[in-house]
Amino acid sequence: MQYVKIKDAIVEQIEAGMLSPRQKLPSERKLAESFDTTRVTLREALSLLEAEGRVFREDRRGWFISPAPLRYDPTQSLSFNKMASEQNRIPNTELISAKAMIANKQATSLLALKPFTDIYRVDRVRYLDSRPVVFVTHYIRPDLFPDLLSHDLSQSLTDIYKEHYATQYQSVRYRISTSSLVNETAQALRATDGTPTMVVERVNLNAKGEAICCDIEYWRHDAINIEAVAHFSR
Amino acid sequence: MQYVKIKDAIVEQIEAGMLSPRQKLPSERKLAESFDTTRVTLREALSLLEAEGRVFREDRRGWFISPAPLRYDPTQSLSFNKMASEQNRIPNTELISAKAMIANKQATSLLALKPFTDIYRVDRVRYLDSRPVVFVTHYIRPDLFPDLLSHDLSQSLTDIYKEHYATQYQSVRYRISTSSLVNETAQALRATDGTPTMVVERVNLNAKGEAICCDIEYWRHDAINIEAVAHFSR
Repeated sequence: MQYVKIKDAIVEQIEAGMLSPRQKLPSERKLAESFDTTRVTLREALSLLEAEGRVFREDRRGWFISPAPLRYDPTQSLSFNKMASEQNRIPNTELISAKAMIANKQATSLLALKPFTDIYRVDRVRYLDSRPVVFVTHYIRPDLFPDLLSHDLSQSLTDIYKEHYATQYQSVRYRISTSSLVNETAQALRATDGTPTMVVERVNLNAKGEAICCDIEYWRHDAINIEAVAHFSR
Repeated sequence: MQYVKIKDAIVEQIEAGMLSPRQKLPSERKLAESFDTTRVTLREALSLLEAEGRVFREDRRGWFISPAPLRYDPTQSLSFNKMASEQNRIPNTELISAKAMIANKQATSLLALKPFTDIYRVDRVRYLDSRPVVFVTHYIRPDLFPDLLSHDLSQSLTDIYKEHYATQYQSVRYRISTSSLVNETAQALRATDGTPTMVVERVNLNAKGEAICCDIEYWRHDAINIEAVAHFSR
């Protein structure tokens, strides 16, 4: 396949350090010319590179070399901010919306709620070094966190829970799957519809084993590497 | 977007039970006709459904409705066979190749070997209900498992380690990322080049914390759901 060869040539240039993280690639037209190929074949090569997490596309801005992914350990209770800082990345959080509502199907199922339970929904976008990397929807129980919406929700929720409600997670149930970005979620991450995403659902439990809140995280798939250690009991 | 609407219509049919798992979809031509759209738009809808894990394509055979994914807990030491059986799925393993070799870059790095160390490499494809779902490459240390290649390697390696070498894993270090299938790996899973894949790398450690073997698993991304619980220590 010609496009696999073009892909390999670009990977070689990245690994040789000739293309550095966050660097913008030349236009598709120029790239096609320099590889002496068609736009269609070039796009197939770029799609493969995107699937492998080597390059990413920003809507209307073009193709870029992917920065190193964030190492994410779901078995740790580190906040996004701490995780990023420990890895010398600059985190930032943008609040998209926050409201009280009746729990929808997803929240009801994840938090094991009775039908028509009140819930807070908070949508946020998180940035690493100014690049939007994850769209997060939080569902939070108002009975445990009354007046949560009066706090500055661009700050760490973990810190707010701890400081204002004396509540910490004791354990987390998580689920990891893959999907693709569409509509508002894609737009918030400056991605085109159909960009691959890694979906991390986390249900946070208190010491009594009750679900107190949950997060549904849509990661730009090249921005995250999930890494953990598990010890077996026999 | 018209293709998002077509996608939603097909999802609705799946959720209403009108299309059942493993069912073959009509040809792209017929589908395009029945949705009164072009082949190009229909393919965009199918790609989105594929990315969401709703449908999958087998090379030269067409599109099928995806069966339920296997729930996979990387924090458990369950073998593939046990995991599948517990979920009422029929597992099967096909041995692709097994050989002794000098460790390549990947094996050297995962197992923290000295350069030019001997290693066994075993490649296998695993099936669920006759569908190939994961391509696995194992790298195994011959100093710990002498003559491993003389055993029936279509059987559980975990069982062989235990029965013939009195060795069990004590812990596992795992890494989860996404990529796309190409070449031999794609062919072995009957996938077209570029199909999304979830990559699970597992390094298995003994009681002394030494890496004894590692697996690199390329899952058809719709065939796996990673689920686990983590307890925090503070």
